[in-house]
Amino acid sequence: MAEPLRIVVVGGVAAGPKAAARARRLAPDAEITIVEKGEVLSYAGCGLPYYISGMVEDRNDLMATPIGVLRDPEFFAHVKDINVLNKTEAVAIDREAQELEVRHLPTGTTERLPYDRLIIATGTDPVELPIPGSDLENVLQLKRVEDADRFREVMITEQCPYVVIIGGGLIGMEMTEAVTECGSAVAIVEMLPHVLPMLDADMAILVEEHMREVGVTVLTSSRVERIEGDENGKVSRVVTSSGDAPAQLVLESVGVRPNVELARRAGLLIGPSGGIHVNEYMQTSDPNIYAAGDCAEKSCFTRGTPCFLPLGSVANKEGRVAGSNAVGHAERFPGVAGTTALKIFDWNVGRAGLSVEQAGELGIPVTSATVAAPDKPHYYPGAKTIVLKLVAEKATRRLVGIQGVGEGEVIKRIDVAVTAMTAGMTVDEVANLDLAYAPPYSEAMDVLIHGANVLRNKLDGLVRGVTSVELHDRLEAGEDLMLLDVRSPSELEEGGIPGSRLIPLGDLRSRAAEIPRDRSVVIYCKTSLRAWPACRILAANGYDNLEMLEGGLAAWPF
Amino acid sequence: MAEPLRIVVVGGVAAGPKAAARARRLAPDAEITIVEKGEVLSYAGCGLPYYISGMVEDRNDLMATPIGVLRDPEFFAHVKDINVLNKTEAVAIDREAQELEVRHLPTGTTERLPYDRLIIATGTDPVELPIPGSDLENVLQLKRVEDADRFREVMITEQCPYVVIIGGGLIGMEMTEAVTECGSAVAIVEMLPHVLPMLDADMAILVEEHMREVGVTVLTSSRVERIEGDENGKVSRVVTSSGDAPAQLVLESVGVRPNVELARRAGLLIGPSGGIHVNEYMQTSDPNIYAAGDCAEKSCFTRGTPCFLPLGSVANKEGRVAGSNAVGHAERFPGVAGTTALKIFDWNVGRAGLSVEQAGELGIPVTSATVAAPDKPHYYPGAKTIVLKLVAEKATRRLVGIQGVGEGEVIKRIDVAVTAMTAGMTVDEVANLDLAYAPPYSEAMDVLIHGANVLRNKLDGLVRGVTSVELHDRLEAGEDLMLLDVRSPSELEEGGIPGSRLIPLGDLRSRAAEIPRDRSVVIYCKTSLRAWPACRILAANGYDNLEMLEGGLAAWPF
Repeated sequence: MAEPLRIVVVGGVAAGPKAAARARRLAPDAEITIVEKGEVLSYAGCGLPYYISGMVEDRNDLMATPIGVLRDPEFFAHVKDINVLNKTEAVAIDREAQELEVRHLPTGTTERLPYDRLIIATGTDPVELPIPGSDLENVLQLKRVEDADRFREVMITEQCPYVVIIGGGLIGMEMTEAVTECGSAVAIVEMLPHVLPMLDADMAILVEEHMREVGVTVLTSSRVERIEGDENGKVSRVVTSSGDAPAQLVLESVGVRPNVELARRAGLLIGPSGGIHVNEYMQTSDPNIYAAGDCAEKSCFTRGTPCFLPLGSVANKEGRVAGSNAVGHAERFPGVAGTTALKIFDWNVGRAGLSVEQAGELGIPVTSATVAAPDKPHYYPGAKTIVLKLVAEKATRRLVGIQGVGEGEVIKRIDVAVTAMTAGMTVDEVANLDLAYAPPYSEAMDVLIHGANVLRNKLDGLVRGVTSVELHDRLEAGEDLMLLDVRSPSELEEGGIPGSRLIPLGDLRSRAAEIPRDRSVVIYCKTSLRAWPACRILAANGYDNLEMLEGGLAAWPF
Repeated sequence: MAEPLRIVVVGGVAAGPKAAARARRLAPDAEITIVEKGEVLSYAGCGLPYYISGMVEDRNDLMATPIGVLRDPEFFAHVKDINVLNKTEAVAIDREAQELEVRHLPTGTTERLPYDRLIIATGTDPVELPIPGSDLENVLQLKRVEDADRFREVMITEQCPYVVIIGGGLIGMEMTEAVTECGSAVAIVEMLPHVLPMLDADMAILVEEHMREVGVTVLTSSRVERIEGDENGKVSRVVTSSGDAPAQLVLESVGVRPNVELARRAGLLIGPSGGIHVNEYMQTSDPNIYAAGDCAEKSCFTRGTPCFLPLGSVANKEGRVAGSNAVGHAERFPGVAGTTALKIFDWNVGRAGLSVEQAGELGIPVTSATVAAPDKPHYYPGAKTIVLKLVAEKATRRLVGIQGVGEGEVIKRIDVAVTAMTAGMTVDEVANLDLAYAPPYSEAMDVLIHGANVLRNKLDGLVRGVTSVELHDRLEAGEDLMLLDVRSPSELEEGGIPGSRLIPLGDLRSRAAEIPRDRSVVIYCKTSLRAWPACRILAANGYDNLEMLEGGLAAWPF
């Protein structure tokens, strides 16, 4: 009888256990070992903010199976026949001998584990902030379950009327909601001009407005200069380039980087994104060593360049592929679309592919369209507006990016767009997708279809658009343009853009002579659904100075 | 100056107004006329059940723009510059003269409208039931707004403790919910073995169980023999092959057929599905005449055969394409996936492409996988189970069908699958889609990804499955098989299949000798997530008589 295949997995959170479980199912005779530095395995790291907010009451829910069985080493041994060495650190890989050196942390004992296949799933490390005061008490990071325990303990046992969150990425945003729901006043500090830098400015600014409406202080383009403490060494305030913010608790969440030390020391190739280089079989530069999850470099098919994307969904898929290949069941991972999703208070936020800003950085000519529309028919109770921005490559008309924000069902549209982008569909193809329709779910022409049609109209040269941020910048710069509001007079009470001329759409044919020809005319209504025919009516009268405010007032944050 | 292009549109509900509006935007000088038999235009026919249930309180909401402007002939004339002849019937097309003969119904006056392009959007007619008693008072159909008014009037002004709905298609199902919510007891009578015949039996039967739980009487495989009335000529009961049902109100909703009389009399080609034959430009056999919406035949790319699919979403898209082409802006409509969606009480139901039964009828070899899983992580509040069934073509591994039912977010998964099917993706590609992940929206491995992976495992020969209906039939036929329940003992209180042997998954390796080799072993747990590794454990012990109950107890309706 042949020797059993020895598989050693480093990392026990997401990709690691997934790879181990997949390998076990395909290779019942293999010897499979997971090495995990922490105590707890296979926990839902993405659920930590909801544990901190109290929405998830029982910490064990994050590390139990759906029927409540804790995924501890005994569970892995008994149910999955997988050996787990927890509280054990992987120290070094001896590639020649095919051995992993590990150290049991409580005792300091070291051991060498022979392997036929090694799978590295070491995840990420938080980026450290080089600012004075980071070492004060109650300045925390959030990476592991133990960090969440500490955070929750401070929130519950100490007075924390003010909390400062440094970093406006996904974790910072989710924690802003979690901490606000605990009753603290939150200030979030972001160094870049906007939170969520994976969104274009016109979309990110809508999210910031929603956060401010809920009472969050949003400080953008703001650098943290230092964190100051009180006489007991506890944090008391955060000093930023935009002023001071009081704080009894500070979360540093300025990002994470792939944890590649073990791989680097073993001489494995590290990619340009900083992750461990892997091929589509999740194989590193050593064919007996695989990498999966946050520590592994991703290929992003919309960017065409390697990227770093730490997400549990990608980690699980990669883990499965690595586990399959490690036991000889060939399987490929095609890469990612760069999809991210986020719930922030009452809003849903999602994006995938290229933003207009990213396309610009990459030198890819694109056209975009922003639309605002209800997520189901206006007559159906509970219909909520969402704002979608679609991005197409000019040369091919392929959809290459999507962003969506709002109270309505954004994420469904993101997922459809991700699938379309993965398949390389044009916006013309997206516009004719036979999406599920019934009044509880969508309009007859779904907002995504509507967005694709607006984008087609723009690509066909039938209409020109201007985004909220572009228009605002031009107005600020003093450009002499005409703002034409084509709503009904009764809608004026809902607000508008100061300095606009009102000509309801129905009167535009007879009053076209009132429109100037010598300067830009920017046309809008509530969502710009009426601005589009208004553009066409005036174009028929020979006007070529027309622009439609994309998304209308529904996407106007100023 | 050239003569303006004359466009005449027959039909003012969905595809017709859409075609007219699109033509207007592209061709500002065209003369555009809509001919509509009824009084009311451009109303949301799909919203009628929600108007009847009272969920939509104001009838005008169904025929107004999102800002509440009624889409009456004045609106079309003033805002859209489109001439509307309502209460006017299209009598005949003179293709040689390029004239449409119309009759103004209130006066009987006829008129001939010259056209350069004619667009037929005459919709559907309800199928009439040839049963005695159909002419009794309070035996109604639901097609137009006026029918809904009548229905609502009867429900409100008369005592209707019992309502019978004949036909378990989409309208029958939506009306079952609407009428139940009005407080009446509903019996729904379907001639076929199950409601919603576009679903496979194992999925439809789950929907029927949900309806019964809510208190609906579901009579399947039941033929209506006659409708009986009382001394005043009002309906009193419905006599079916499964017994009598009392009724003060009966809805006949046994289906609709394309309204093609005008086209047929003009000699236009009618397709095998009964709809007006069109090419991908929505052009009929007369190049100056287009057809769009429910009256036009659809090309269904998963079936590969023409089909009939009366849906507002498809009608709107086709209307836009017809309107574009009518004014010379070339645009194609690629066909449909056969997508339908339905909310029935607390459940969401959707499907697209081929069911296993349809694939069988068409002779296409397919493999399917049914999975049950929560729509978001089990620890996140509000997570609800859904049951998904994926169908792949064996030869190509392409996804060709999807069905989903349950309380959770089914429709997002349907829309993603529709997009994947449209692109011709394999289940391997679907399994690696970079779908949006965050705990409020999905599990790290979304249920659709999970379903695709189970289907891959089946296609790869790693596991065999049996559906609930197949297993039930085999048990009923007295087959001597072993039912192996691999749950924990604590879960037994949630029920199970009588006659099962319990061996928890964790004990299976040590107790494998208890499993017989001489008959089929069907393995299950709550969702069959544990049945899959159980199959692999036993397969490693040389068992080749294993089947997994697909979807587990969560998809077991018996």
